[in-house]
Amino acid sequence: MSDYDLRERLAGARAGGMPAETTEQLDREFLATEPKPVGRVSAWHDEADVVIVGYGGAGVCAALEAARSGADVLALERAGGGGGTTAMSTAHIYMGGGTRVQKAVGLEDTTEDMFNFIMASSDDPDEEKVRLFCDESVDHFDWLVEQGVPFKDSIYPERTPEQPNDDCLLWSGNEKAHPFRELAKPSARGHKVKNQAEGGPILFRILAEHAEKAGVRLQCDTRVLNLVVRAEDGRVCGVVVRQDQEERYIRARRGVILCAGGFVMNREMLRNHIPSMLEENVSPVGNMYDDGAGIRMGMSARGTAIHMDEYFVTVVWYPPSSLTKGILVNEYGQRFINEDSYHGRCAEHAKRQGRAFLIADNEIFGYPESGLELIATEDSIADLEAALNLPTQTLQNTVAVYNANAEKGEDPVFHKHADWIKPLDSPPYAAIECSYGIAPYLTFTLGGLRTRVGGEVVTEDDQDVPGLYAAGRNACGIPRSSWGYCSGTSVADATFFGRITGRSAAANEPWS
Amino acid sequence: MSDYDLRERLAGARAGGMPAETTEQLDREFLATEPKPVGRVSAWHDEADVVIVGYGGAGVCAALEAARSGADVLALERAGGGGGTTAMSTAHIYMGGGTRVQKAVGLEDTTEDMFNFIMASSDDPDEEKVRLFCDESVDHFDWLVEQGVPFKDSIYPERTPEQPNDDCLLWSGNEKAHPFRELAKPSARGHKVKNQAEGGPILFRILAEHAEKAGVRLQCDTRVLNLVVRAEDGRVCGVVVRQDQEERYIRARRGVILCAGGFVMNREMLRNHIPSMLEENVSPVGNMYDDGAGIRMGMSARGTAIHMDEYFVTVVWYPPSSLTKGILVNEYGQRFINEDSYHGRCAEHAKRQGRAFLIADNEIFGYPESGLELIATEDSIADLEAALNLPTQTLQNTVAVYNANAEKGEDPVFHKHADWIKPLDSPPYAAIECSYGIAPYLTFTLGGLRTRVGGEVVTEDDQDVPGLYAAGRNACGIPRSSWGYCSGTSVADATFFGRITGRSAAANEPWS
Repeated sequence: MSDYDLRERLAGARAGGMPAETTEQLDREFLATEPKPVGRVSAWHDEADVVIVGYGGAGVCAALEAARSGADVLALERAGGGGGTTAMSTAHIYMGGGTRVQKAVGLEDTTEDMFNFIMASSDDPDEEKVRLFCDESVDHFDWLVEQGVPFKDSIYPERTPEQPNDDCLLWSGNEKAHPFRELAKPSARGHKVKNQAEGGPILFRILAEHAEKAGVRLQCDTRVLNLVVRAEDGRVCGVVVRQDQEERYIRARRGVILCAGGFVMNREMLRNHIPSMLEENVSPVGNMYDDGAGIRMGMSARGTAIHMDEYFVTVVWYPPSSLTKGILVNEYGQRFINEDSYHGRCAEHAKRQGRAFLIADNEIFGYPESGLELIATEDSIADLEAALNLPTQTLQNTVAVYNANAEKGEDPVFHKHADWIKPLDSPPYAAIECSYGIAPYLTFTLGGLRTRVGGEVVTEDDQDVPGLYAAGRNACGIPRSSWGYCSGTSVADATFFGRITGRSAAANEPWS
Repeated sequence: MSDYDLRERLAGARAGGMPAETTEQLDREFLATEPKPVGRVSAWHDEADVVIVGYGGAGVCAALEAARSGADVLALERAGGGGGTTAMSTAHIYMGGGTRVQKAVGLEDTTEDMFNFIMASSDDPDEEKVRLFCDESVDHFDWLVEQGVPFKDSIYPERTPEQPNDDCLLWSGNEKAHPFRELAKPSARGHKVKNQAEGGPILFRILAEHAEKAGVRLQCDTRVLNLVVRAEDGRVCGVVVRQDQEERYIRARRGVILCAGGFVMNREMLRNHIPSMLEENVSPVGNMYDDGAGIRMGMSARGTAIHMDEYFVTVVWYPPSSLTKGILVNEYGQRFINEDSYHGRCAEHAKRQGRAFLIADNEIFGYPESGLELIATEDSIADLEAALNLPTQTLQNTVAVYNANAEKGEDPVFHKHADWIKPLDSPPYAAIECSYGIAPYLTFTLGGLRTRVGGEVVTEDDQDVPGLYAAGRNACGIPRSSWGYCSGTSVADATFFGRITGRSAAANEPWS
């Protein structure tokens, strides 16, 4: 395992490239995670004030801030190098309230609008976390810049899930879409780290260099197997690792921070918690170690996991952005969402329908860049209705109502923004397959340990698990439901709360 | 506590009668449930082959069968008497494949149709459990009859959620509704225990008398606090109880069976797992000890809980059954379900909409017996559309398509059965409020420990937790989702798998 490099081995694992046998093997490899009583530890192999489990975006931020707070920090990474899923990502980071980039491109934003938007677009939001996340968002941006993370003062002008260049800001879509635009003044908040390709590798490298300088010790090829717990009060005292082919005990004087990612690569856990993610044509997005081990270690020490049934999901039906002027309909010929909604929100609503089709006319049609399938073209809506086997007069009525309102530039039914409204009256008409289970969908998990704002893991009864912290997708954070997800919230949550959690753990009283 | 009687104290607790302060108190009383290492037990106060935690429908069946298998059985009940939620229920028991009652009233049914129906109407069904449940359903009916449980050879002829008399069979609705009628030959399977009022008290009393005769020892006013676990292999060895105002250890030689009910009365757990159940006008159905203690003890011993986000939900919008000839529409004026679906399935679909209204004309209108509110009456559908603030032409189009098809006795859009189809053309027209959060909804939880067909609790990795079993709503059984729930499946699951689990635990090797 020593010359193993995560990113290399994961080249094929992203977004559906992982072969089934690999995930099956992960399942088999998955060990039980019950905690070890500290009374049985005869000797500690190593120790630190703060032990970090998993060295991706959350882990490196937690390590860096803990070290800068004066703690001796040991970071443990199962792969041959750090980075995790953050280093594979575009590195959109959701920040707002008036960042340098927002101001440079002339966008207005306030902390309150950001707060209102996240609260409105979240399922069961943790208000205290959302408040802090927004209040300190500009500071977080500035901190990243201070570390040297590059952001270009620019905005990509087209509606797209990911900008194809190094532009910084992107309209994710949600902010400007109903009902959110009525609840908070819209602004673009997804900041991409400057790079023509994914920004994740740059983001991670910069933070990891700082962590090294700050004295963080990193041990790779080191799998954390269990927590070590004091039986009397449940205090987490350290971890058991497999390292150099033997099991070793590592003492954590002040705390253990779990930052080991979500569980989208663990088919057994998906079967238990999100069986719909095992359906056809649904591809996991993540790295192969996103197997839930951290979440389960936290649960083994009495932490409660919440939103375990929740996930991000998307089907990439644009660009071209002109398709936003089409309508998404279900098997009853009904619309079900304003089509200018964020792609993930559209996907979740489409998933809830039996079937879903995007209907376009000749004027706005373009082949989806993602390769979604064109399944019918007809010279009339009536013929398209028949070709799709929709009940007679249903799609026709839907289009008639849509067009009558579109003539006036309005959508009083689903409130799509006027920018995207035009009558569908230019034959031929096209239908693009968007059905869950048929069209290609992408997913990752959002459930994790319930934590306080400082990253402290809590029990089902809302008691602290002493000495235990979690961040990133080991915790349930800002992003917590498929219909409310927004690009950049996961990396933003991981880095922001990673930093806070590092400081919390560093300030915790040591056990003896 | 000694003269405490559950049913008396719970007279007001059913279906929304529980005051908020009582449930809050339950939350505060709720103790941590971490397991105790067996090495720390200095002396056992009592012991048995099989220890039953909770003495409701599942517990009494498990106890009875374990005792009849030759085991020494000790049942522990937190209340002053047994019965649990089963004894508060109507006691519909979902059974089929050709029971005596089905035959007597001339209904055909087969095991395969029952199996196909449950598989089709379940979210993430456990096929092995469903198979056994159906294969042995007639046997289960006969067994209940042998014990003396009375069932009248009759069927209640109206569409209703609960028959108001002692008739046995009831069409729950689902079986005859699309898409199920195409997937399995419909039959009525909800068997009510014979009684003018609820059948639950009769069912429980009869079974409890048999258990007593079979030698089951019952200790009430006994709260189980923790499991006792052997650290080396996680074997469950017994329980810690609070009894006679002291903590005592009780050894379970062969196994512990958790039968302590769901968690609908635990607001903290609802907040963690089903926060939507804390919304306005949603009332818990259950007894005050349905607080999830059993599920959490199982999790503390590494059992995995699944479908924790799932629940039964209903809004009782009929009788009168003639309202089935109306249409349910959302805030877009769209229908969203065939209205002859089971009331719980209708409710779940209504819950997913923003708003939901039942639209009826004068010919079929009757005030809902549950008291749902009539919120608008108008002389035309156009006026009703306006009165409900629905987008112009949406409800009108929906009714136009519905009526055009209804003239032919058809519903090609949602496939409501022809028995319930007539054009809505007899003014005035009425709208009844069915929105989640506004109309009164009822709920209980369906998530629980993942178990094998024999009741063995398993870990997230699909390993057995040695010595630990669960049944009833401590397990995730046949009923496991709101849209697929069917009246009688919960009591049927609890009694059927309770019996099997009692036999499994009795046959387990004792530990030493």
